[in-house]
Amino acid sequence: MRSLLIIAHGSRRAASNDEMRALTEQVAQQAGDDYQRVACAFLELAEPSIPDGLAALIDAGCTEVTVVPYFLSAGRHVAEDIPAEVAKVEKPDGVTVRIAPYLGQSPAMAGLLLAQAGRTD
Amino acid sequence: MRSLLIIAHGSRRAASNDEMRALTEQVAQQAGDDYQRVACAFLELAEPSIPDGLAALIDAGCTEVTVVPYFLSAGRHVAEDIPAEVAKVEKPDGVTVRIAPYLGQSPAMAGLLLAQAGRTD
Repeated sequence: MRSLLIIAHGSRRAASNDEMRALTEQVAQQAGDDYQRVACAFLELAEPSIPDGLAALIDAGCTEVTVVPYFLSAGRHVAEDIPAEVAKVEKPDGVTVRIAPYLGQSPAMAGLLLAQAGRTD
Repeated sequence: MRSLLIIAHGSRRAASNDEMRALTEQVAQQAGDDYQRVACAFLELAEPSIPDGLAALIDAGCTEVTVVPYFLSAGRHVAEDIPAEVAKVEKPDGVTVRIAPYLGQSPAMAGLLLAQAGRTD
Protein backbone atom coordinates (compact mmCIF):
# COMPACT_ATOMS: atom_id res chain seq x y z
CA MET A 1 0.00 0.00 0.00
CA ARG A 2 1.53 3.29 -1.14
CA SER A 3 1.17 6.51 0.80
CA LEU A 4 2.29 10.12 0.92
CA LEU A 5 3.24 12.09 4.01
CA ILE A 6 3.40 15.82 3.29
CA ILE A 7 5.54 17.68 5.84
CA ALA A 8 4.86 21.34 6.64
CA HIS A 9 6.69 23.50 9.15
CA GLY A 10 3.65 24.10 11.33
CA SER A 11 2.46 27.46 12.58
CA ARG A 12 1.13 29.12 15.72
CA ARG A 13 -1.67 30.31 13.43
CA ALA A 14 -4.32 27.58 13.35
CA ALA A 15 -5.54 28.83 9.97
CA SER A 16 -2.15 28.06 8.39
CA ASN A 17 -2.22 24.50 9.68
CA ASP A 18 -5.80 24.11 8.45
CA GLU A 19 -4.70 25.42 5.05
CA MET A 20 -2.16 22.58 4.99
CA ARG A 21 -4.80 20.01 5.90
CA ALA A 22 -7.08 21.29 3.13
CA LEU A 23 -4.23 21.06 0.62
CA THR A 24 -3.59 17.49 1.79
CA GLU A 25 -7.24 16.70 1.03
CA GLN A 26 -6.81 18.11 -2.47
CA VAL A 27 -3.71 15.99 -3.02
CA ALA A 28 -5.61 12.90 -1.84
CA GLN A 29 -8.40 13.61 -4.30
CA GLN A 30 -5.96 14.08 -7.18
CA ALA A 31 -3.80 11.09 -6.25
CA GLY A 32 -6.24 8.58 -7.72
CA ASP A 33 -4.83 5.06 -7.52
CA ASP A 34 -1.22 6.21 -7.12
CA TYR A 35 -1.41 6.57 -3.35
CA GLN A 36 -3.90 4.77 -1.14
CA ARG A 37 -3.33 7.17 1.76
CA VAL A 38 -2.30 10.81 1.84
CA ALA A 39 -1.60 12.53 5.15
CA CYS A 40 0.24 15.55 6.50
CA ALA A 41 2.46 16.07 9.52
CA PHE A 42 4.21 19.05 11.06
CA LEU A 43 7.82 19.63 12.04
CA GLU A 44 6.73 21.75 15.00
CA LEU A 45 3.89 23.81 16.52
CA ALA A 46 1.08 21.56 15.23
CA GLU A 47 -0.13 17.98 15.32
CA PRO A 48 0.54 15.30 14.25
CA SER A 49 4.31 15.32 14.59
CA ILE A 50 6.36 13.67 11.86
CA PRO A 51 6.99 10.47 13.90
CA ASP A 52 3.29 10.23 14.82
CA GLY A 53 2.13 10.83 11.26
CA LEU A 54 4.59 8.33 9.84
CA ALA A 55 3.80 5.68 12.46
CA ALA A 56 0.08 6.06 11.75
CA LEU A 57 0.62 5.30 8.06
CA ILE A 58 2.76 2.25 8.87
CA ASP A 59 0.21 1.04 11.45
CA ALA A 60 -2.49 1.39 8.80
CA GLY A 61 -0.60 -1.08 6.61
CA CYS A 62 1.28 1.25 4.27
CA THR A 63 4.39 -0.47 2.95
CA GLU A 64 5.73 2.41 0.84
CA VAL A 65 5.75 5.92 2.29
CA THR A 66 6.97 8.91 0.31
CA VAL A 67 7.71 11.93 2.49
CA VAL A 68 7.33 15.25 0.65
CA PRO A 69 8.77 18.35 2.38
CA TYR A 70 6.45 21.32 1.78
CA PHE A 71 9.35 23.75 2.13
CA LEU A 72 10.67 26.37 -0.27
CA SER A 73 14.36 26.25 0.54
CA ALA A 74 16.95 23.75 1.60
CA GLY A 75 17.73 25.02 5.09
CA ARG A 76 18.40 23.03 8.22
CA HIS A 77 14.78 21.88 8.43
CA VAL A 78 14.99 20.09 5.08
CA ALA A 79 18.62 18.95 5.34
CA GLU A 80 18.67 17.77 8.94
CA ASP A 81 15.47 18.05 10.94
CA ILE A 82 13.07 16.18 8.66
CA PRO A 83 15.45 13.22 8.09
CA ALA A 84 16.09 13.07 11.86
CA GLU A 85 12.36 12.98 12.63
CA VAL A 86 11.76 10.31 9.99
CA ALA A 87 14.62 8.26 11.45
CA LYS A 88 12.91 8.15 14.85
CA VAL A 89 10.27 5.74 13.60
CA GLU A 90 11.05 2.04 13.43
CA LYS A 91 10.35 0.60 10.00
CA PRO A 92 9.20 -3.03 10.06
CA ASP A 93 10.59 -5.41 7.44
CA GLY A 94 8.98 -4.76 4.09
CA VAL A 95 8.29 -1.09 4.78
CA THR A 96 10.22 1.51 2.79
CA VAL A 97 10.26 5.23 3.53
CA ARG A 98 11.71 7.65 1.00
CA ILE A 99 12.13 11.43 1.29
CA ALA A 100 11.33 13.20 -1.99
CA PRO A 101 13.00 16.46 -3.12
CA TYR A 102 11.55 19.46 -1.27
CA LEU A 103 8.90 21.59 -2.94
CA GLY A 104 11.19 24.51 -3.84
CA GLN A 105 13.21 22.19 -6.07
CA SER A 106 10.27 21.54 -8.35
CA PRO A 107 11.15 22.20 -11.99
CA ALA A 108 7.59 23.50 -12.38
CA MET A 109 8.05 26.29 -9.81
CA ALA A 110 8.91 29.07 -12.26
CA GLY A 111 5.77 28.32 -14.26
CA LEU A 112 3.68 28.29 -11.09
CA LEU A 113 4.97 31.75 -10.14
CA LEU A 114 4.10 33.09 -13.58
CA ALA A 115 0.61 31.63 -13.30
CA GLN A 116 0.15 33.24 -9.86
CA ALA A 117 1.31 36.58 -11.26
CA GLY A 118 -1.37 36.38 -13.93
CA ARG A 119 -4.22 35.67 -11.50
CA THR A 120 -6.50 38.61 -10.94
CA ASP A 121 -8.69 37.30 -8.12
CA MET B 1 6.57 48.20 -19.42
CA ARG B 2 5.38 45.26 -17.36
CA SER B 3 7.44 43.68 -14.60
CA LEU B 4 7.37 41.08 -11.86
CA LEU B 5 8.81 41.44 -8.38
CA ILE B 6 9.03 38.08 -6.62
CA ILE B 7 9.20 38.45 -2.83
CA ALA B 8 10.96 35.84 -0.71
CA HIS B 9 11.39 35.89 3.05
CA GLY B 10 15.19 36.00 2.92
CA SER B 11 17.53 33.75 4.86
CA ARG B 12 20.74 33.92 6.89
CA ARG B 13 21.87 31.11 4.58
CA ALA B 14 23.35 32.70 1.47
CA ALA B 15 22.60 29.55 -0.55
CA SER B 16 18.87 29.99 0.05
CA ASN B 17 18.95 33.55 -1.22
CA ASP B 18 20.96 32.44 -4.24
CA GLU B 19 18.39 29.71 -4.88
CA MET B 20 15.79 32.48 -5.05
CA ARG B 21 17.88 34.51 -7.47
CA ALA B 22 18.32 31.45 -9.71
CA LEU B 23 14.58 30.83 -9.68
CA THR B 24 14.03 34.48 -10.61
CA GLU B 25 16.30 33.92 -13.62
CA GLN B 26 14.20 30.92 -14.65
CA VAL B 27 11.02 32.94 -14.37
CA ALA B 28 12.58 35.69 -16.50
CA GLN B 29 13.49 33.17 -19.18
CA GLN B 30 9.99 31.68 -19.20
CA ALA B 31 8.21 35.04 -19.08
CA GLY B 32 8.80 35.73 -22.76
CA ASP B 33 7.05 38.94 -23.79
CA ASP B 34 4.67 38.97 -20.82
CA TYR B 35 7.09 40.79 -18.51
CA GLN B 36 9.96 42.95 -19.66
CA ARG B 37 11.69 42.78 -16.27
CA VAL B 38 11.65 40.10 -13.58
CA ALA B 39 13.38 40.73 -10.26
CA CYS B 40 13.33 39.45 -6.71
CA ALA B 41 13.43 41.19 -3.35
CA PHE B 42 13.56 40.02 0.25
CA LEU B 43 11.40 40.83 3.26
CA GLU B 44 14.41 40.58 5.55
CA LEU B 45 17.95 39.22 5.96
CA ALA B 46 18.96 39.71 2.32
CA GLU B 47 19.23 42.38 -0.35
CA PRO B 48 17.54 44.07 -2.09
CA SER B 49 14.77 45.01 0.30
CA ILE B 50 11.23 45.24 -1.05
CA PRO B 51 11.27 49.06 -1.27
CA ASP B 52 14.68 49.02 -3.00
CA GLY B 53 13.64 46.30 -5.45
CA LEU B 54 10.37 48.02 -6.26
CA ALA B 55 11.97 51.45 -6.65
CA ALA B 56 14.57 49.98 -9.03
CA LEU B 57 11.84 48.62 -11.31
CA ILE B 58 10.00 51.96 -11.30
CA ASP B 59 13.25 53.86 -11.94
CA ALA B 60 13.92 51.53 -14.88
CA GLY B 61 10.65 52.67 -16.45
CA CYS B 62 8.29 49.88 -15.44
CA THR B 63 4.72 51.15 -15.36
CA GLU B 64 3.03 47.93 -14.23
CA VAL B 65 4.57 45.95 -11.39
CA THR B 66 3.07 42.68 -10.19
CA VAL B 67 4.37 41.64 -6.79
CA VAL B 68 4.28 37.86 -6.21
CA PRO B 69 4.78 36.64 -2.63
CA TYR B 70 6.87 33.45 -2.66
CA PHE B 71 5.28 32.30 0.59
CA LEU B 72 3.39 29.12 1.40
CA SER B 73 0.93 30.41 3.97
CA ALA B 74 -1.04 33.54 4.70
CA GLY B 75 0.67 34.63 7.91
CA ARG B 76 1.54 38.13 9.03
CA HIS B 77 4.28 38.43 6.41
CA VAL B 78 1.80 38.03 3.55
CA ALA B 79 -1.14 39.82 5.15
CA GLU B 80 0.67 42.81 6.65
CA ASP B 81 4.41 43.06 6.15
CA ILE B 82 4.60 42.79 2.36
CA PRO B 83 1.78 45.32 1.74
CA ALA B 84 3.43 47.68 4.25
CA GLU B 85 6.81 47.44 2.49
CA VAL B 86 5.20 47.97 -0.92
CA ALA B 87 3.37 51.02 0.46
CA LYS B 88 6.67 52.68 1.43
CA VAL B 89 7.53 53.36 -2.21
CA GLU B 90 6.05 56.39 -3.92
CA LYS B 91 4.32 55.47 -7.17
CA PRO B 92 4.53 58.18 -9.83
CA ASP B 93 1.43 58.89 -11.90
CA GLY B 94 0.88 56.18 -14.45
CA VAL B 95 2.58 53.48 -12.39
CA THR B 96 0.43 50.68 -10.98
CA VAL B 97 1.59 48.12 -8.45
CA ARG B 98 -0.53 45.06 -7.74
CA ILE B 99 0.09 42.28 -5.21
CA ALA B 100 -0.82 38.84 -6.62
CA PRO B 101 -2.13 35.95 -4.48
CA TYR B 102 0.70 34.28 -2.55
CA LEU B 103 2.25 31.08 -3.88
CA GLY B 104 0.52 28.70 -1.44
CA GLN B 105 -2.83 29.73 -2.88
CA SER B 106 -1.97 28.36 -6.30
CA PRO B 107 -4.65 25.98 -7.58
CA ALA B 108 -1.81 23.97 -9.14
CA MET B 109 -0.09 23.29 -5.79
CA ALA B 110 -1.63 19.85 -5.18
CA GLY B 111 -0.46 18.69 -8.60
CA LEU B 112 3.02 20.07 -7.95
CA LEU B 113 3.27 18.09 -4.70
CA LEU B 114 2.22 14.91 -6.49
CA ALA B 115 4.84 15.50 -9.16
CA GLN B 116 7.53 16.06 -6.49
CA ALA B 117 6.50 12.83 -4.76
CA GLY B 118 7.00 10.94 -8.01
CA ARG B 119 10.51 12.29 -8.62
CA THR B 120 13.22 9.77 -7.95
CA ASP B 121 16.29 11.97 -8.31
